[in-house]
Amino acid sequence: MKIILDAMGGDNAPLAILQGAADAVKELGVQIVAVGDQKKIHACVAEHGISLDGMEVLHADEAIEMCDEPAKAIRTKKNSSMVIGLRALAEGQGDAFVSAGSTGALHVGASLIVRTVKGVKRPALASVVPGGENPFLLMDCGANVECRPQMLNAFGVMGSVYMQKVMGVAQPKVALVNNGAEESKGTPLYQAAHQLLKANPSIRFIGNIEPRDVPTGAADVVVCDGFTGNVILKLTEGLAKTLVGQLKPIFKRNLLTKLAFLAVKDGMKKFKQKMDADEYGGAPLLGTAKPVIKAHGSSNAKAIKNAIRQAKKCAEMNLSEIMQENLAALQAAESEV
Amino acid sequence: MKIILDAMGGDNAPLAILQGAADAVKELGVQIVAVGDQKKIHACVAEHGISLDGMEVLHADEAIEMCDEPAKAIRTKKNSSMVIGLRALAEGQGDAFVSAGSTGALHVGASLIVRTVKGVKRPALASVVPGGENPFLLMDCGANVECRPQMLNAFGVMGSVYMQKVMGVAQPKVALVNNGAEESKGTPLYQAAHQLLKANPSIRFIGNIEPRDVPTGAADVVVCDGFTGNVILKLTEGLAKTLVGQLKPIFKRNLLTKLAFLAVKDGMKKFKQKMDADEYGGAPLLGTAKPVIKAHGSSNAKAIKNAIRQAKKCAEMNLSEIMQENLAALQAAESEV
Repeated sequence: MKIILDAMGGDNAPLAILQGAADAVKELGVQIVAVGDQKKIHACVAEHGISLDGMEVLHADEAIEMCDEPAKAIRTKKNSSMVIGLRALAEGQGDAFVSAGSTGALHVGASLIVRTVKGVKRPALASVVPGGENPFLLMDCGANVECRPQMLNAFGVMGSVYMQKVMGVAQPKVALVNNGAEESKGTPLYQAAHQLLKANPSIRFIGNIEPRDVPTGAADVVVCDGFTGNVILKLTEGLAKTLVGQLKPIFKRNLLTKLAFLAVKDGMKKFKQKMDADEYGGAPLLGTAKPVIKAHGSSNAKAIKNAIRQAKKCAEMNLSEIMQENLAALQAAESEV
Repeated sequence: MKIILDAMGGDNAPLAILQGAADAVKELGVQIVAVGDQKKIHACVAEHGISLDGMEVLHADEAIEMCDEPAKAIRTKKNSSMVIGLRALAEGQGDAFVSAGSTGALHVGASLIVRTVKGVKRPALASVVPGGENPFLLMDCGANVECRPQMLNAFGVMGSVYMQKVMGVAQPKVALVNNGAEESKGTPLYQAAHQLLKANPSIRFIGNIEPRDVPTGAADVVVCDGFTGNVILKLTEGLAKTLVGQLKPIFKRNLLTKLAFLAVKDGMKKFKQKMDADEYGGAPLLGTAKPVIKAHGSSNAKAIKNAIRQAKKCAEMNLSEIMQENLAALQAAESEV
C-alpha cells in the first residue's frame, strides 16, 4: 500500500507532514511518496532527525498557496506538489492521495486530474464530526455550495458506503438536514431531495433531521448542500470554542476554583480528545475515481498520520469502486421509473 | 401602553402566560389584554392566586394548536386566541401583540391581519441570540426559507433599526453569513445580497461573516435566509445542550469532582444565565405594521414578562414606522439607479 502525500500543503508543512508520514510508516506499515521540494524535505528531515525509511521523495518545484485562486492554481502551477501528487495518483504511482493544502484547489484538482466515478460530476467534501454518542459524517461541507436534488441523493449513497466500509457502522442511518420533520419542509431542493432519498433502496433513510439533533449523533450520515454543511461544520467549531472560552474564567477565578479544575482536569482532557476532529483523520473527497483525503490545514503530525490511516482504509476497501456500483444501481433504478 | 397577549399559546399556557402578564403589570407599568377562554383564565388565576389588576380578558372560544397547518388554522379558526388577538391589534385595541403559540401561524396571521410595512411582503423572524461578548440579532430564523437578495438587504435595515432602538446599540454592525470572507463566495443569492448590502447607505455593513465567527458576537445583526438561520439557531441550541450534557458526568464522577462543582457552581449559574435566551424576550416579527413578538413555545413566566417588555419597547420606539422610513429611503435610492 502506497500513499502519496503533499509534503508542502498546510500551515505546518513540511515538518508536521513528514513527521506524520514517518509515524505512519512505522505504525501502519504503509509506504509513502512525499511530494515536494527535494532540498527542503531533505533539510527538514536532517534537522529534526526524521527517518526516510519507507518513503520516497517526488520532487515538485512549487506549492499552491492558500491565497491562490483554486482553478487558476491547478491550471497554471503544473509543478506544484498538489498537481504532481494528484497526477501520480491518476497514473497509478500510489493508491491514495493526502493533502493539508487548499481545499478549493484540491477539489478542482481531484475533479480534473483524478476524475470522478460515473454519475458524479464533482466530488463531495465529507467530514467526520465528533457527535454526542458517535462521530457522524457530514456532507457536503462546502465543496458544492449549489446542489441539485440528485446530488443530495448521491451524497446519501456515498456517505453510507463510507461509514460502512471505513468507520465500521453496520447499517448507517442517513438523514437529511431540514427545518422540520415533515416531508414538506424546507426549500424546493430539500423537498425534492427528501423524496429521492426516501425512494432510494440502497440506503437506510431515517427522514429529516432538525439542526438541533445533528450534534447528538442521531444519524450516521447527515446530508445537506455545501453552503448549509459549511455553516454546520464551522458553527460547530466556533461554538465549541466560544463555550470552552467562557468556561475558562470560571475556573480561573480563585484558588478554590483552580483546585476544582485539578479535580476535573482528566475528565476535561478526555472530553477534549473526544471532540477533537484530528482523531478521525481528514475530510474525504467522495466520488473521486481514487481516494483523495483533505487533511485539516492546521494538521499536526498526529492528524496527518490519521489521515494516512484513513486513506489506506479507503484504498483497501476499494471505496471508489463500491460507490460506483451503488450509484450505478441507483441510476438504473431511476431510469426504470 | 397596552399589550395584547395570547393567553392560550405555548406549552405552559395559560398559567405561565398569566403569571408573566401579572408580573409585567407590576414591574413594567403596562396594561394587558389577555386573549383566551374566559372560563379557563378565571379558573387559572383563582387557583394560583394571580391578580388580574391592570388586565382585561378578551374571550376566545378556541386555540391554534402546534400541529395545526398554519395557513389553514388562521383561515378557519376565526375565534382562536391568536386570530382574535391579532385582529385586536390591527383594530387599535392595543399597541403590540405577544404569543408563545405556533410560529408558522403567527407569521401567516401577522402578514394577513396586521399587515406589513411598505416594501415588505412577509415579515421576517428575528431572534436575539446570546453571543460571546454581546447578544446579536439573527434573521431570518425560519419564517422565510426562500429569499431573494432584496429581502436579505431589507433584513439588514430592519435588524439594524431593531438593535439600535430596542437593544441600544449605537451603530449596529451588519454582516452577511457566508462560507468565506470574499465577495464572490456563496450561492448566487449571497453574491447578489452582498452587493446590495454593500451599497446600502443606511446600514453599517461589515461584509461576510463566516459561521465560526457568528457565536463570538463579531456582528450585531447577522443576515441570512430562513433555512440557514434556522440551522444556525437550532444547531446553537442543540450544541450547547450536547456540550453541557457531556460536562455533567465529568463533575459527577466522584466526591472530589462533586466538591469541584460546588466551587464553580456560581460561575456556571451566571454563565447559564448569560446563555439563556429567555433573558432577551422573544423573537420579533420584523416588518409588521405593528409590533408582533413570538415568545418561545416553552416560555415560563419570566420569558413572557421579558417578551412583554420587548413588545412595549418596540411600541414606544415606533419601530414599525422607523423601519418603513428606512426601507422607503432604500427603495428611492434603488429606483434612482
